[in-house]
This record gives sequence, structure tokens and C-alpha cells, in this order.
Amino acid sequence: MYPKSLEQLIQSFKLLPGVGEKTAERYALLIYESEIQDVEQFAKALMDVKENLHACKICGNLCEDCECDLCKDDTRNKRVIFVVQSAKDVIAMEKTNEFKGVYHVLNGLISATKGVMPEDLNIASLIERAKDADEIIIGTSATMDGETTAMYLDRLLAMQVPNVLVTRIAHGLPSGGMLDYADEVTLTHALSDRKKMQ
Amino acid sequence: MYPKSLEQLIQSFKLLPGVGEKTAERYALLIYESEIQDVEQFAKALMDVKENLHACKICGNLCEDCECDLCKDDTRNKRVIFVVQSAKDVIAMEKTNEFKGVYHVLNGLISATKGVMPEDLNIASLIERAKDADEIIIGTSATMDGETTAMYLDRLLAMQVPNVLVTRIAHGLPSGGMLDYADEVTLTHALSDRKKMQ
Repeated sequence: MYPKSLEQLIQSFKLLPGVGEKTAERYALLIYESEIQDVEQFAKALMDVKENLHACKICGNLCEDCECDLCKDDTRNKRVIFVVQSAKDVIAMEKTNEFKGVYHVLNGLISATKGVMPEDLNIASLIERAKDADEIIIGTSATMDGETTAMYLDRLLAMQVPNVLVTRIAHGLPSGGMLDYADEVTLTHALSDRKKMQ
Repeated sequence: MYPKSLEQLIQSFKLLPGVGEKTAERYALLIYESEIQDVEQFAKALMDVKENLHACKICGNLCEDCECDLCKDDTRNKRVIFVVQSAKDVIAMEKTNEFKGVYHVLNGLISATKGVMPEDLNIASLIERAKDADEIIIGTSATMDGETTAMYLDRLLAMQVPNVLVTRIAHGLPSGGMLDYADEVTLTHALSDRKKMQ
């Protein structure tokens, strides 16, 4: 129904997560109405990401060089490693400005339903890095797959690098969270991990 | 925080309607993980839309030639013109397969709040086309701006092309609509435009 070039762009937009026919149509029509230089920049940015972006060879974070800015930063404590699922989590954590160690990006989680096995993840190099570390903080999500991966990493590290301290980020009520809206698992965690008030 | 090429792509995605920082991040990371040929196709589709797509010189609908497929179609009744806000509406209407006339795309609506004046719209050529038409169906949305535009077009056509019949699409309860969920304006229309049952 749409002219061919517009239809093609709609199909491309539909590759994006959560974008259906209607949204892709809106996006494509906006592109038609946009300034040519914005669209040129968009097309260039797409190709640049594919051509220039790599995984850091140390931690697996996204970067344009062989090593990411965080791994290259000598002021950071290389002996504390925060393990996360994806590069997005590194950004989220860095926004807090609370963590001064380094990261390790797994590029996924172990998942029975999605058929993701430990060997599909960036785990082998974590074991190598753990040998020179004091603490490994497992920062995977508080989901089924996140917990499975956390448990797997804990056991693997206990076997292969017995001297390193393995910790898990706290579970509990989120900031602004209301008790009566929290699910049972959250409340169970919030209760069992309670701590003495100052 | 993100590598430069990724940040640039996130900025480009944020130009799309309703796309904020988080969504743009998800889109950009998906592009990083996509197949190179899909991304190449995406970049090409963006440029193609800017370079190949034009407004039909007769009706203002989107097309790749000077005239759109609907205006070129000799089986359609050129004496009945359905006036819509945008090319999206043409597609929506064509999906019903009920209308066999031609369209006229205004490319917007008169809007006091957005500062869109009648002279910003594709109205002058509608008056020209109306001179050879039997009926002009005003198919703008049932919103404030849609009604304003409909009223303006009705008066303008009555002055300039007094012999043409000007009609407005029906307002009322949408298919599947529940009476107790409908707002008062909809119900008022549904009542006043009631018709005899067969």
C-alpha cells in the first residue's frame, strides 16, 4: 500500500524491540518529514555503530578501542570486579558514582527457556580476572535467570578461585517502593536481609 | 558515558516521536547486536525515503513518481474527493476497501495552539480540484483541530465552489464501543445523528 521506499523503512524499524506496524509507520513518516542532514546523520550513526563499536577485550564493555575507558582508568580499583549482564548495566551503575572498581560484562544470562548455556557467556575470562581480584560482586538482575547465573558463578568461583570473596548485590524494597505493592519474594528478602539501624 | 558512536545513534533515535533516553538506548544496543546487512539496509532505507519519496502533485499523498497510484488509477471516481490530514489516513481508509473515489491530503490541520494557519496547508489545490468534483467528503479527525479545519473548509468551499456537495464523516460510538465508557461529546453526536433502523 505504501510506496516501496517507505515500506522498506517501515520493515527496518520493525526490527527494533517493541516496535509494531503502527509505531514503525509513525517513525518512517517522521523520517520523511525530517531535515535531510538529520537523516544523513542517522544513517551514518547506524553504520558507525556497526563498524566502530567493539567489546572491550578485558571486561566485555562496549568501546571504540581495544580497551574501554573504565579498564584504562588507573584510578579505579582493579581488584574489585562488578559482574553485570550487559553494557547498559555498566552505564546505570556508573550514574550512581558509587562504585570505583571495574566491571565484567557477561553479555547475557544463563537461561533454560532461551537455551543460553554458561559457555555462551563471557565467563572464562572472568575466572582469569578473579585470580588477581579481592572481591567479585555479582550484579545480575533479581530475576529467575539473574539468580540462576549468580548461583552458577558463585559455585564456579568457589571451586576455581577459592580465595576470592564473592558477594551479591542486596535485594529488598526499592527506593520509593510501597510495602503493600511489593511482591512476596521482595518482602521475604527485605525481611531476611534487614540490618541494624544507626 | 557511552562510546561516541553509540551516543550519536542514541541521539538520532531520540528524534523519533515518543522515544526517550531509555528506549533510544535499547534501540541503539539492538543495532549493535544486529546483522550488518540488516543495518546496511536500514541506513539505505533512511536515505531512500528522503531521496525518492515525494508528495503527489495532484492529491498530496506520498509517492515515488509525480502522481500517486490512486490518482493514476482510472477505475476510481475522480469526482468524489476524500479530504484527510495525512498520508497515514489514506492507508487507513484504503484498508476498508469501501471508498472508490480519490483523496486530498492536507498535510496537517489548522491549529491555534500549534500556530498552523490555513495557508500552511495543501488547501489551494483542493479548491481547484473541487471545481470538477461532485462531492467533497471532509475526513479530518474528530478532534478540536480536526473540527476547526472541517468547519473552515466547509465555509471556504461554500464561498468558492458553491455547487459542490460538502459532507462530513459520521461521528458516534466506535465499533465495539461501550456506552458507559463513551464521553459526552461522542454520546451527543451518537444521539443527534441517529438513523432509522432497517
